[in-house]
Amino acid sequence: MSYPPNPPYPDTQMREWMQFAHELADLARPIARRYFRQPLVVENKADASPVTMADRQIEQAMRAAIAARFADHAVLGEEFGEQGDSALRWVLDPIDGTRSFICGVPLFGTLIALLDRGRPLLGIIDMPMLDERWAAGPGSPATWNGAAVRTSPCADLSSAKLFSTAPDLFAGEDARRIAQVESAVAVRRFGGDCYQYGLLASGQIDLVIEAGLQRYDVMALVPIIESAGGRICGWDGAPLSERFDGRVVAAANETLLAQTLARLA
Amino acid sequence: MSYPPNPPYPDTQMREWMQFAHELADLARPIARRYFRQPLVVENKADASPVTMADRQIEQAMRAAIAARFADHAVLGEEFGEQGDSALRWVLDPIDGTRSFICGVPLFGTLIALLDRGRPLLGIIDMPMLDERWAAGPGSPATWNGAAVRTSPCADLSSAKLFSTAPDLFAGEDARRIAQVESAVAVRRFGGDCYQYGLLASGQIDLVIEAGLQRYDVMALVPIIESAGGRICGWDGAPLSERFDGRVVAAANETLLAQTLARLA
Repeated sequence: MSYPPNPPYPDTQMREWMQFAHELADLARPIARRYFRQPLVVENKADASPVTMADRQIEQAMRAAIAARFADHAVLGEEFGEQGDSALRWVLDPIDGTRSFICGVPLFGTLIALLDRGRPLLGIIDMPMLDERWAAGPGSPATWNGAAVRTSPCADLSSAKLFSTAPDLFAGEDARRIAQVESAVAVRRFGGDCYQYGLLASGQIDLVIEAGLQRYDVMALVPIIESAGGRICGWDGAPLSERFDGRVVAAANETLLAQTLARLA
Repeated sequence: MSYPPNPPYPDTQMREWMQFAHELADLARPIARRYFRQPLVVENKADASPVTMADRQIEQAMRAAIAARFADHAVLGEEFGEQGDSALRWVLDPIDGTRSFICGVPLFGTLIALLDRGRPLLGIIDMPMLDERWAAGPGSPATWNGAAVRTSPCADLSSAKLFSTAPDLFAGEDARRIAQVESAVAVRRFGGDCYQYGLLASGQIDLVIEAGLQRYDVMALVPIIESAGGRICGWDGAPLSERFDGRVVAAANETLLAQTLARLA
């Protein structure tokens, strides 16, 4: 269930990519802050919501920076889709947590990942309004605002804190499957999007289960969760690849993951 | 469905109480911040959770300040119950949003109200980690960090943003009743506790519906919501009195409230 190792890159190369990912997050932050809690903006005669404006401008700014620095890298973004063809691909979600954003709740974030042949090499979760940033990659273990983080030692579902963004993620059979986990945990809470995975990496919560996610919602999470000591995979235990089915489990450790997957089965 | 007016108090008296309520919030903030995201604390040989420590210390600090300044006022607090007998009663919830607090989510707050014969005279919602504070009282219209706020003009459920803290607030018949509202709104989101009511006062969201609340969860909200142009009451439309049944609706305006109450009936 673990991810195959990425091929070795020179340390200097890895550091450059990681530093550049931070630069992308630094570009995104002020744009998100500018549109947060602002009323509708009229754009090209059509009403555009602040989240639409923020989404587009952030992704455009990040794409322009990538094109200027790594012209041969491919890009996948929520707003403007696929661009280029390369083993190295940046995967961007300018505003993860759209519902939070439009409701004035500061729990939205910007997600940045660099993939090597489909495998996440590095990731950033940036929370523009909260001044919190998680980052990780080979040679840069998971950090929160620069300080090393570690997942919780919680090894039993009965004392675990479980998060999901919203109950309506789970329909039909999925609802029945997650109910088997919900009935076993100590705390069950909704609302959070990418922030939940940061809290998991920092050991504040123990379990996140979601469905209906896209590649750009999850790829940045993988290096952060894994290098903080946690596990992240599909509901079937498979690594999150480019072909994943939108169902995700993130757990503080292998023991908790095994208990969770058994109940989801 | 509106609250009867409080008897007139001299402006100087009202200003003194409002200013003092801010001082109570200023006392609470650093204590909440100190215990947020901290591991278990051993207290008197028994394990005490950080939220328990923060709850108790904040309420003790506020009670001591009230006793020193207004020795004849009564107090009701979540942790230490009723104290004194007076027409004027401070109602305190040191940490509203316990689940957020223990999960490292900054959406918890401190609630402070002053009641006159059971009617809320002034209220404060303070968010220690977010540096956000809503306040209102007679002569001090609703403010967010000192700036006047106003609820949204949203006058139709079909474009309304609805919040509740958690789906498990609603059991049996309550679940059926709120489903009639959920099926009609534009956005439905969970997670927030007192923060939801601040967002409503600021016009960011349009509707909050909850059940299972206590007096200390709601009294501070009333002056803030009402003086920002919104409405807050029970599911039956009755004002929130000392005898309310734990069910609360807060709406951006009278039109939205009427549509909501009709669907809850």
